[in-house]
Amino acid sequence: MEDRFLSLPIFTLTTDFGLKDSYAAEMKAVILGLCPTAQIIDITHMIEKFNIRSGAYVLASAAPYFPVGTIHIAVVDPDVGSERRALIIQTERGFLVGPDNGLLSLAAEKLGVKHIREITSKHIMPHHVSSTFHGRDIFAPTAAHLANGIPLEELGPEVTNLVRPSFTRTIKETGRIEGEVLHIDNFGNIITNIHENDIEYHKRNTIKIQLQQVKLQLQLSKTYADAKAQQPILLIGSQHYLEIAINHDNAANKLQVKTGDKIILTYS
Amino acid sequence: MEDRFLSLPIFTLTTDFGLKDSYAAEMKAVILGLCPTAQIIDITHMIEKFNIRSGAYVLASAAPYFPVGTIHIAVVDPDVGSERRALIIQTERGFLVGPDNGLLSLAAEKLGVKHIREITSKHIMPHHVSSTFHGRDIFAPTAAHLANGIPLEELGPEVTNLVRPSFTRTIKETGRIEGEVLHIDNFGNIITNIHENDIEYHKRNTIKIQLQQVKLQLQLSKTYADAKAQQPILLIGSQHYLEIAINHDNAANKLQVKTGDKIILTYS
Amino acid sequence: MEDRFLSLPIFTLTTDFGLKDSYAAEMKAVILGLCPTAQIIDITHMIEKFNIRSGAYVLASAAPYFPVGTIHIAVVDPDVGSERRALIIQTERGFLVGPDNGLLSLAAEKLGVKHIREITSKHIMPHHVSSTFHGRDIFAPTAAHLANGIPLEELGPEVTNLVRPSFTRTIKETGRIEGEVLHIDNFGNIITNIHENDIEYHKRNTIKIQLQQVKLQLQLSKTYADAKAQQPILLIGSQHYLEIAINHDNAANKLQVKTGDKIILTYS
Repeated sequence: MEDRFLSLPIFTLTTDFGLKDSYAAEMKAVILGLCPTAQIIDITHMIEKFNIRSGAYVLASAAPYFPVGTIHIAVVDPDVGSERRALIIQTERGFLVGPDNGLLSLAAEKLGVKHIREITSKHIMPHHVSSTFHGRDIFAPTAAHLANGIPLEELGPEVTNLVRPSFTRTIKETGRIEGEVLHIDNFGNIITNIHENDIEYHKRNTIKIQLQQVKLQLQLSKTYADAKAQQPILLIGSQHYLEIAINHDNAANKLQVKTGDKIILTYS
Repeated sequence: MEDRFLSLPIFTLTTDFGLKDSYAAEMKAVILGLCPTAQIIDITHMIEKFNIRSGAYVLASAAPYFPVGTIHIAVVDPDVGSERRALIIQTERGFLVGPDNGLLSLAAEKLGVKHIREITSKHIMPHHVSSTFHGRDIFAPTAAHLANGIPLEELGPEVTNLVRPSFTRTIKETGRIEGEVLHIDNFGNIITNIHENDIEYHKRNTIKIQLQQVKLQLQLSKTYADAKAQQPILLIGSQHYLEIAINHDNAANKLQVKTGDKIILTYS
Repeated sequence: MEDRFLSLPIFTLTTDFGLKDSYAAEMKAVILGLCPTAQIIDITHMIEKFNIRSGAYVLASAAPYFPVGTIHIAVVDPDVGSERRALIIQTERGFLVGPDNGLLSLAAEKLGVKHIREITSKHIMPHHVSSTFHGRDIFAPTAAHLANGIPLEELGPEVTNLVRPSFTRTIKETGRIEGEVLHIDNFGNIITNIHENDIEYHKRNTIKIQLQQVKLQLQLSKTYADAKAQQPILLIGSQHYLEIAINHDNAANKLQVKTGDKIILTYS
């Protein structure tokens, strides 16, 4: 009893369901049915519909702040009902549960992967699994059973070859990095998948950016305040990714950039 | 103590309050004041203002997934402050609390009605009951007292004649059903109040639909994938109601349909 | 153990973060890491960006309904990273935690101030405090430590001179009050900072309102129903502030009024 009290298990939800329908609540209902002491925290339900990149970025931004043992469920799942696999990733700090489409990849990297399993066990699922709502019928019950202590090996076979969409990697050559736009935040800042560790940068370096039709030649700024009005600036954002912003303006609109756009960075 | 621990009571909220004001939080505050171990889950606060049909549909969609004993509070209440009654419906799976305007009707049907009471007891309400916010001053404290075990008969007199707006029933004749549009979902799919059990359908049947000015002649599809591009399809949705959709398009906008519109279905 | 069980501490959040990013979730993660039994309630994350007046109004509207001991965290913080102080205000009913920019002022007045401290202790903060996200790095951990019983005097020095922006006060002369617009609610009703106690009103009084370019001559109405169609009315709102509304219309749009606009009221 004391044990159970002291470990109110924490779940998080990251989805593209929006806030008008009952989908997120149905997932919470299933979790509470199996795990009545669950603490369920919304990361967001406002990921742009089917935008796996943005979902991966937002989940990876929040996940490291949660206590060890937290179970993160993420559902941005354009291929639900197809052959795409359902995954559990056990990390150094808890679990990630969701589709095998890259959505979990950035968080997995940050939290440190220990084991990966495909969810195949029929025991934990309802009799009728909806072909359109695995969030409620597969991911939520799996997460609840994890909190209740089910051994990982009972949930399905080990997985070694995760799906790795283009946004999970950059192409590095000497003086050149090719990446893509991961997320446009609330302010219109353009967040790329180029990590600060990827850049061999010296203070004297000028960085050339090619982003769709736009070409920029910039130096790395420390803060937004370094910017001249209306001029794009280049900086390392709070999640340690390269970011292009325009102070007091919406860079994504101004430069007509969207998630998935290719970015090429060269310096000398 | 163990008892109380093991039964963290679950409450849900379904309202048209939106997310910018403090109304939903005020209800949660009142619940937590009376029932400090409450787990309060938002179904949604984004029901279209005063749209009782949509509220009834969304509540009925989510409610069956919640554990037995859950207390569902719903507030879409255009006639607050008038003579409309405040209700508790005890069901096979928990309680529904809200105005007697049809909002609880679809969920009540799904969960199985046992007893209905009007909320009249002054003991459970604050000294000053706002004439515009029964959610905070009547429904929230009633729900909390239910969780704390107050006997139903102390809350008010039995009710037998619920308000039943037009959307709670269909008119069936041989080969003909008349219903109405219950909800437009996030994707623009048109969800009607015609239940799959209402339709005596055989595979060879062609169904004629008259929806405002629009006339359609369709067969029942199994999935969205059956649709030709831009063509309306007819299917049974996840809540077992007849639904009109256009694959990859917004059927409600395209056909200029809104909730409450009459639909006539004939087949032979 | 029983003690801890019986006092699941309640936290609330009021911010301008919006719902698309992971910021609110990061704050909740930090709280749960330090205080695993926390109950965290969103008041809103939809305060208009940097609108301290609206934030102050919404927080003050909800806070009095929460149980004694609740810890309210508010973050509308345009000057984060500057010299503005971080505050804890201990009130008769719990704590307020946030920036010293007036955001906490209206709630503090309602709840009754006991002690005010500046948050300066480095012990309770992470090693690296972000210059742009004090919500996560200062306010959330401070709030969690308060719930865990840290003595107030360990958090920082006493504060006596709070920042008091213009909206926290009105200028009263005989027959004249000068105030400003505090909040525009979901319906477009114009809520001012003129409290009902400020007005020496007799039934026979006609009140003259000057609001930007608009001049009105009105009597105090009891309810919205007193209004003639399309005519502005003057009434005391649910939070006891003077309010200008147009029944079934959006007064703020119609009169072209925004938060911060000056209002002058004269009567004789």
